[in-house]
Parts: sequence; structure tokens; C-alpha cells
Amino acid sequence: MKIRLGPTQNLYPMPCPIVVGGTMDQPRALTVAWINVVSSTPPTVAMGVRRTRHTLEAIRERGTFTVNVPPASLAAETDYFGIASGRTADKFAVTGLSLVPSAVIETPIIEQCPFNLECRVTGETEVGEYVVVLGEVLESHADESVLDGGGAVDIEALDPLVYIAGARQYRRLGDKVADAFKIGRSFGDSA
Amino acid sequence: MKIRLGPTQNLYPMPCPIVVGGTMDQPRALTVAWINVVSSTPPTVAMGVRRTRHTLEAIRERGTFTVNVPPASLAAETDYFGIASGRTADKFAVTGLSLVPSAVIETPIIEQCPFNLECRVTGETEVGEYVVVLGEVLESHADESVLDGGGAVDIEALDPLVYIAGARQYRRLGDKVADAFKIGRSFGDSA
Repeated sequence: MKIRLGPTQNLYPMPCPIVVGGTMDQPRALTVAWINVVSSTPPTVAMGVRRTRHTLEAIRERGTFTVNVPPASLAAETDYFGIASGRTADKFAVTGLSLVPSAVIETPIIEQCPFNLECRVTGETEVGEYVVVLGEVLESHADESVLDGGGAVDIEALDPLVYIAGARQYRRLGDKVADAFKIGRSFGDSA
Repeated sequence: MKIRLGPTQNLYPMPCPIVVGGTMDQPRALTVAWINVVSSTPPTVAMGVRRTRHTLEAIRERGTFTVNVPPASLAAETDYFGIASGRTADKFAVTGLSLVPSAVIETPIIEQCPFNLECRVTGETEVGEYVVVLGEVLESHADESVLDGGGAVDIEALDPLVYIAGARQYRRLGDKVADAFKIGRSFGDSA
């Protein structure tokens, strides 16, 4: 039996990358669970950021940001980047996370996050108190330690932190269930 | 050491709900990994759908869609909804998934998916071959079987299917790592 919950803002699961704006000298960063890829032509992400966030100013000012996927071992650091404000705390000094230069844009990436995207703002839409920012992915990086022999990201080695809305939990990924674009073919040739 | 991968379209992890457009009589549906919440004022989702998809026509025509989160046990069905086209196959007949009426809009929800959102299209932006659709969440539903005593979604009971881009895998959620909006406070009062 279906129970009506009213208009919620939950979807399962969500990522929780740390998004960086600004520069090596003046970085600003926050954790964003409301983000995903939305196009491949060109590769583009969309993210919803509260209008008042300090990092958003820097993203709008320079027109660039980076998306940095933390491993499960950085849950406390990731959480801190979401709840603290850069107006009153130096999040990098407090957590010990550090920045390294990007390849294409001036906004840096986070060294301890093993997967990173460099993005250029290509659009924005206001939705109430939030701004939906579209960003074209200009470059991606992975730590050598999370790449398999063929140069692809090994998801077990990456061990990305996962956010569960509503329950407000961080989780790890669990076991593999099936291969995508494959198991569905069990339903026949129409697939 | 960071390795440059070029502009990729991966972020970890992604959800993989089945999105339904149309009506009970003429439903269309596809699996969408490129979707997330982007605002809470009002609750709004953004999703990227390839311009040529059959379901997109129905979503644009009626201005409504539903988002249906499958459990890990429906990996094959979910995969099929992503790889088959409604132009040549009746996905519901083939998989045995069934529809039940929504509460607010005419587009139905999927019975076997234990968490569902009813959405009204509030905007769209074309990004190359994709359309980024914004949808306001008008209502949410959960199966009684996935609600805890307090009426909140029990994530273990929901057991949502997770999509891993690049590796093209479906996974389950794994163990809880920490409480969000809490573990970060270990870094002090500024949080």
C-alpha cells in the first residue's frame, strides 16, 4: 500500500562531492548532494546551491568550479564542508584537506579526493532560494591509485561516499548487483 | 598522482529511477541515471534526457512525469526500461511492472517501485542532444513496507538500486558510515 508523504525533496541515493570555487589563493568550498550529470554533449553537470552560500559568489564571479568526490574515509571532512561556512572558518585549514592546481581552469581540485571534474559555468536558473548551475566538464582527473590496468576508474578502490537524504546518513557502496546495459537483455531481443 | 582523463560524464554514485510520462492508458517510461533534486523551494528535480527519447515527447506534451525508485531486486527490469524503446516494445507488458494512479497528476506511478515522486514540468533547457527538464515535486509516495514506525523512509527496507557510471554496474547500498550534519562537528564549534 502506497502512503502519501507530501512534496518531499528526497531521491535515493545522492552523491556528496565537495565543490570548490575561487582560486588557489582564495578558495571557497562546500559539499553538494544536489548534483548530477545531465548531458554528454558536451559533458555537463547541474547542481542546486542555496543562493546565500559563500562559495556560490565565487563560482559566479569566476565562472568556474571543481567537483571533488570524497572516499568514505573522508566522511567527517565532507560533512564539515557542508555545515560550516567559509565566512567564519577556513575549512581547508580546519580539516587538513589541500588543493592542487587544475589542468584547464584556475579553480583548484582537492588532493585527497580521488576523482575530480573541472567545470565552466554555462548557465544558471533560479528556483526559489536555490540557483541551479549548469557546468560543462572541461577535464576530469583520477588518482593513479583508483585506476585499473585499463585506465578506467575502479569503483571499489574509489570507495565513494554516498549521501542518503531524509535519513541524513552517509553510506558506502555495497555489492555489485548486475551489469548495466546487459542484464535487461534477459527480457528479449527488443532490448 | 592525478591522471588526466579528459572531459568525462561520470559522477559517483548515481540513482537510476524509472521515469514515467503520459497516462494510465498511454504510459511511456525510461530509466534515468542523470537526475537529482536541485531545490527545496519548492522541491524540484532536474534530469537530463536525450532529445530523441520517446518518453520525453509525452513528458513535454502533458507537462507531468513521475520518478519511481526501484529496489535492487528489480535490476533487470530497470535495465530493460533503459535499453529498450517504447516505440518498438511494451515495456510494462514485457517486464510485468504495473502502474497505479497518482494522487495529484494524471501520469501514474509504478506499483513495484517503493518510492515515487509526482512532478510537474516547470522549465527546460537544451544542452546539446539532451534536454534538462526541471520538475516541481507535487507529491511523494512510499510503500508502507519501507516506512519506519515514525513514518520516515527506512533506507535498508527501500534497498534502492544504485548506478555506477563508467563501470556500467548496478550496486546496492553498503554500510552506514556516519550521521550527516553531525560527524563534521568533530572539527569544532565553527561547524
